Amino acid sequence: MSAPNTNAQNLKADWIAVDWGTTSLRCWAMHGTQLIASAQSPMGMSQVAAGRFEQTLLALVEPWLQANTCTPVLACGMVGAKQGWIEAPYQPTPCSAHSQVGLITAPTADPRINVRIIAGVSQASPADVMRGEETLIAGLLTNAPTYNGVVCMPGTHCKWVEVRNATLQRFNTVLTGELFELLSTQSVLRFDTQLDGNEKSLNNDVFISAVQEHAATPDQLTATLFSIRAQSLLNNNTTMDSTSRLSGLLIAADVIAMQHYWQDKPITIVAEAQLASLYKLAITTLNPEAYISITKMDALALSGLCLLAKQLGVINATS
Amino acid sequence: MSAPNTNAQNLKADWIAVDWGTTSLRCWAMHGTQLIASAQSPMGMSQVAAGRFEQTLLALVEPWLQANTCTPVLACGMVGAKQGWIEAPYQPTPCSAHSQVGLITAPTADPRINVRIIAGVSQASPADVMRGEETLIAGLLTNAPTYNGVVCMPGTHCKWVEVRNATLQRFNTVLTGELFELLSTQSVLRFDTQLDGNEKSLNNDVFISAVQEHAATPDQLTATLFSIRAQSLLNNNTTMDSTSRLSGLLIAADVIAMQHYWQDKPITIVAEAQLASLYKLAITTLNPEAYISITKMDALALSGLCLLAKQLGVINATS
Repeated sequence: MSAPNTNAQNLKADWIAVDWGTTSLRCWAMHGTQLIASAQSPMGMSQVAAGRFEQTLLALVEPWLQANTCTPVLACGMVGAKQGWIEAPYQPTPCSAHSQVGLITAPTADPRINVRIIAGVSQASPADVMRGEETLIAGLLTNAPTYNGVVCMPGTHCKWVEVRNATLQRFNTVLTGELFELLSTQSVLRFDTQLDGNEKSLNNDVFISAVQEHAATPDQLTATLFSIRAQSLLNNNTTMDSTSRLSGLLIAADVIAMQHYWQDKPITIVAEAQLASLYKLAITTLNPEAYISITKMDALALSGLCLLAKQLGVINATS
Repeated sequence: MSAPNTNAQNLKADWIAVDWGTTSLRCWAMHGTQLIASAQSPMGMSQVAAGRFEQTLLALVEPWLQANTCTPVLACGMVGAKQGWIEAPYQPTPCSAHSQVGLITAPTADPRINVRIIAGVSQASPADVMRGEETLIAGLLTNAPTYNGVVCMPGTHCKWVEVRNATLQRFNTVLTGELFELLSTQSVLRFDTQLDGNEKSLNNDVFISAVQEHAATPDQLTATLFSIRAQSLLNNNTTMDSTSRLSGLLIAADVIAMQHYWQDKPITIVAEAQLASLYKLAITTLNPEAYISITKMDALALSGLCLLAKQLGVINATS
């Protein structure tokens, strides 16, 4: 995989990789494993009306198509959900992160594209599902095929995945990001936790104290949150301190609940830098010996899609 | 205290009791401890613009006032918050539930009313505040002056209060109701937890299982919530079951966090019937021996305001 080639005559793709999540659509025009162009839009799965997926995709990838040629398209993510283009099945754990099992062809009218959507992954107990993260992990394994450890993917819904022998062994989704968003913007705590967006980072000392506070009483989360409001009323705590404490309590609740995943294992955090550093800080506060690496998620979906494209013969396995 | 007398010639109050919360305003015209008329509106503290509190009150109580007479008005609740009519102080715990300490007079232009607002209660550690619940507890103590035990007041914010020797010893606010509302209407769980309002009650078996589930792993709350969504996707769980499980997990988190309050003590639950019965069910699931009584909150604020009015000499202490 290399940087986009902007030479216009090469802009016709021989295949197209697509990461179509809930809130965004990202497409890459490919020559084998070489990236020749990319395009993205905010037309995530939740923004597209039923029956409008094909034209939403074509609006981005049309310039890369050739007349009289059917270009393979490989897509991962929530586009395969029940509310998406077509429902792709789930593979039950344990399973490969880059398997063509359950690949499903989406209905299309334009003969120039053949769209296949990757299956999600499910787990019977505890019940859980993912769509898209399995492809990020496939991308991670492209660079580290023998990685045995835990992958922590914070965001709206934090996914923790145990990977062993190139297999997704088990996983757990934690609602941390969504809870932070709801509590900090819509609950009684919003008076104390609305940052103006110009802040570079939270107050690490307050964040660490909150992690330690939750670690001491991990069954007290919902009984502790209101004290953020009370401290602000009684002690004039700053918005930055209140926000740092809320973040620390919720990330600690996440990390402590998932300690049975990461204890005694290497941890790879896949997230944008600031969120990744908060999870790292919470984990190292609990265990200074934890072995943690941080990986940016930008290129992982494309790496994972390339790996699967090779397996499917969409691109030559030796390229 | 007796039922309203509708005889028009008696409609002039010799004092007025007011419970002015965040989302509602309730007023009672009184002759001593006798209720002669009542009125309410949805003009809670959060609905009233700064500087409009006096006219909002007069719109309800004007018919009860007499020319050339100043009628005492006693008010409790969020009307005394920083965003309210005038900020009443907090009394720190431990304190009496019916103390005139911190009573503050609101600024008024109409000479026919003299409005005094009851202080809230604060606690330094863990930081907490209340405004209004102290008056409900005063009302409870009117009927049971020697009550030693715990008062559990579920709602948007559940207040747990330890009462001993007619004194509020300590209290803790739990965000249970607000979390249930946010998660069931705005999070990813909303697809599975939106009831249509016609349901009489939740599924008790599912609720009890969820209480037991949380009791077994009380540090796992945020890591468990997403499984409600996954169970619905994988097993076609009904909306009623998903909602019952969410309610059970959140109420269990509340009740288990507060077990150090209610263990080995009588518990009085003050709430509307359905919510009270869910808290009772959660507590008895954890401890079948728990001694629980349920009290409706309707009349408690007025009882508490009457008690304070006697102490203040607004009404004759022997009436």
